[in-house]
Amino acid sequence: FWRAVFSEFLGTMLYVIVGCGAWTENSRVPEMTLSVRVALAFGLIYAVIIYCVRNVTDAHLNPSITLAMLVTRRMCFLRAILYIVAQFLGAILGAALLYGLTAREYLAQLGCTIPGDEVSDAQGFGIELFSTFILVFVVFAAYEKSKREEAITAPFIIGIALAAVSMFAVPYTGGSLNTARSFGPAVIKNVWSHHWIYWFGPLLGGILGGACYEIVYSTK
Amino acid sequence: FWRAVFSEFLGTMLYVIVGCGAWTENSRVPEMTLSVRVALAFGLIYAVIIYCVRNVTDAHLNPSITLAMLVTRRMCFLRAILYIVAQFLGAILGAALLYGLTAREYLAQLGCTIPGDEVSDAQGFGIELFSTFILVFVVFAAYEKSKREEAITAPFIIGIALAAVSMFAVPYTGGSLNTARSFGPAVIKNVWSHHWIYWFGPLLGGILGGACYEIVYSTK
Amino acid sequence: FWRAVFSEFLGTMLYVIVGCGAWTENSRVPEMTLSVRVALAFGLIYAVIIYCVRNVTDAHLNPSITLAMLVTRRMCFLRAILYIVAQFLGAILGAALLYGLTAREYLAQLGCTIPGDEVSDAQGFGIELFSTFILVFVVFAAYEKSKREEAITAPFIIGIALAAVSMFAVPYTGGSLNTARSFGPAVIKNVWSHHWIYWFGPLLGGILGGACYEIVYSTK
Amino acid sequence: FWRAVFSEFLGTMLYVIVGCGAWTENSRVPEMTLSVRVALAFGLIYAVIIYCVRNVTDAHLNPSITLAMLVTRRMCFLRAILYIVAQFLGAILGAALLYGLTAREYLAQLGCTIPGDEVSDAQGFGIELFSTFILVFVVFAAYEKSKREEAITAPFIIGIALAAVSMFAVPYTGGSLNTARSFGPAVIKNVWSHHWIYWFGPLLGGILGGACYEIVYSTK
Repeated sequence: FWRAVFSEFLGTMLYVIVGCGAWTENSRVPEMTLSVRVALAFGLIYAVIIYCVRNVTDAHLNPSITLAMLVTRRMCFLRAILYIVAQFLGAILGAALLYGLTAREYLAQLGCTIPGDEVSDAQGFGIELFSTFILVFVVFAAYEKSKREEAITAPFIIGIALAAVSMFAVPYTGGSLNTARSFGPAVIKNVWSHHWIYWFGPLLGGILGGACYEIVYSTK
Repeated sequence: FWRAVFSEFLGTMLYVIVGCGAWTENSRVPEMTLSVRVALAFGLIYAVIIYCVRNVTDAHLNPSITLAMLVTRRMCFLRAILYIVAQFLGAILGAALLYGLTAREYLAQLGCTIPGDEVSDAQGFGIELFSTFILVFVVFAAYEKSKREEAITAPFIIGIALAAVSMFAVPYTGGSLNTARSFGPAVIKNVWSHHWIYWFGPLLGGILGGACYEIVYSTK
Repeated sequence: FWRAVFSEFLGTMLYVIVGCGAWTENSRVPEMTLSVRVALAFGLIYAVIIYCVRNVTDAHLNPSITLAMLVTRRMCFLRAILYIVAQFLGAILGAALLYGLTAREYLAQLGCTIPGDEVSDAQGFGIELFSTFILVFVVFAAYEKSKREEAITAPFIIGIALAAVSMFAVPYTGGSLNTARSFGPAVIKNVWSHHWIYWFGPLLGGILGGACYEIVYSTK
Repeated sequence: FWRAVFSEFLGTMLYVIVGCGAWTENSRVPEMTLSVRVALAFGLIYAVIIYCVRNVTDAHLNPSITLAMLVTRRMCFLRAILYIVAQFLGAILGAALLYGLTAREYLAQLGCTIPGDEVSDAQGFGIELFSTFILVFVVFAAYEKSKREEAITAPFIIGIALAAVSMFAVPYTGGSLNTARSFGPAVIKNVWSHHWIYWFGPLLGGILGGACYEIVYSTK
């Protein structure tokens, strides 16, 4: 059990280091190229971490998924709380390590998620909500199939889903889909503008995504 | 059964939001970078949605595939009509949601498919026809193999096929391959220039692709 | 048997249309972005076509592979000749169709493979030889594993190998690795400069790659 | 046994040719586009080579992995030494061949790994350490699962892990993660600036990654 919590901590830490690390240089390049790069980095590392630790934990790495699992009564309350705490601690430590590893001149970013100038708060909230809806929906579908012979494809499809959605969301809102991943860099850099959309968007989207799958498909 | 129709609706909606959403920003970047991004976004999200819902539906998300299935007598008439209606409604709702989510300055695009300036109507029609021919051919091949142990690879190969073909077709015609995906943004933006090629190209290409597979390979 | 020959013809045709089609626009964009796009388009469509038709044929689509199979006595002489003829005819027809489909202003390219200015003939020959060596080596390894439970991964790994090698070879020599794929556009555009390296490089590299696998690994 | 050593030699040679070859042209293009290309080339070719030769060898191709396997007592001392020697010889020969194959004007690079100007030695060391930590962690996890039915996914997830981490590390330190891969081009080009970080970073990171997996997960 504690290994599962530790895995959430370690996994989220590595997720933030690699994903936000791929982000840190966008001051020098056109924004569109960046979004392919960031989307692939987040999606691929997510697949990799899930692949490695899912024997031990459910490999959420994301409070939205944990919350959706809790709401649909797939995990107990204590376990969910510990997972979420581990995720936030991992994200903060990951962002701190990344702060030390990356060069001074890039530090303006550190992968903090801030909506683009032309995106209103409501739009950013909606984009995060829809994106996380899709991600959590896919996670639920993949976990359901894990009981069958299709288990080996679960990490791949979840990573692909994150990459696909990120290609849409990264230029608009930074493509967080994950409150912990947004919170870590925000703590380290003390950047909180529009930060509320990264709490309500992913968490609400995750609950809706999990509930939608549960109601429409899982009852079969 | 109704869950299958609902899945076509929901799937096409999400497909349009993510795929066309990845498209919405091409006014700021070089066209070629865009095409990799759009091709990957459409291909990956297509794989993801097929993966999630194919227990419930056949996950066409595309009138060309449904029509080809109907012509080759793999599904009944009523089911095909309902699928296609659900696909069009999903695409329109997806485009409408995307219209609300994305910022004003990008709205000139919204992922409407319009042939490039230097592409004639006949060429655009031909490119859509060939592209959809390949896509539907792959879908038929993947469905045939789904009965065997290779079922787990079907969503991946279909998504890869869409991504590969899109890398060719996106800069020329927008790489629709899907009448519903073109129709949704066109309704919302009221842009209908050269729109006929996105009806006849994909639908005819789909029928030919399905028929080709049926005649040459499926008779084994 | 004739369906296998037809598959080689159809497969090579579609391979040339999609792969060379993704190439046709490189006059407008930076060369490096193009190489990712072309490498992915060729690699992904190759995986897709192999996936679809390998029940019927061995899905070579490439004279280098057919020749290597012939030299290692894995197929008879007549079959090899017919495969190669079908591949060349498919490539020519594919290039001709692409010529019709793409716009006038792009036609300077049509995916003809010509070494970069700063690449000597010997270097181009060497790059093609090494690249095809790797591709055919992988094909042999994948076919050997096809007899076991790993069969479902064969098309993916072959496509990935082609994409990986193309990322290296495309900016230098166009990344042909396939005499038929170079010959088709060359016939249509009548461009033959340095064309000999696309005959001797891939064919010799393919034989060496097949022989290397046969000698070192296959004897187990 | 000797075939395993030969495989390490051949595999590392091809790995260096393709991966560093994809690197050789970065003088002409924006750095960010390069990093996607290089990350994909290294990751994909790594997956391909592992796929092909893992029946014969463990397919390390990387002294960090071999060293981590030795430290965790998964292989004997003699075998580890021979693997590492083969890896270094393969990398040197690969770099020499690449030197011959690529054009003069690109030769300033040859894929030598040098930290970016704004990266301090300590930061470069830390980035290499963390990156290799992740890679070796994934390799250990993948090898453990190879005993079960998930074996077919091992080469893919390892290649994906390398690609994901490279997207983060390439612009900072060149994304070596592999002392042999850094040593080969350095010998040929005689470029040794900051070279020590490519010895201590990957080797120490590899040992830590292997030990972390061994202690936390493998004891189950």
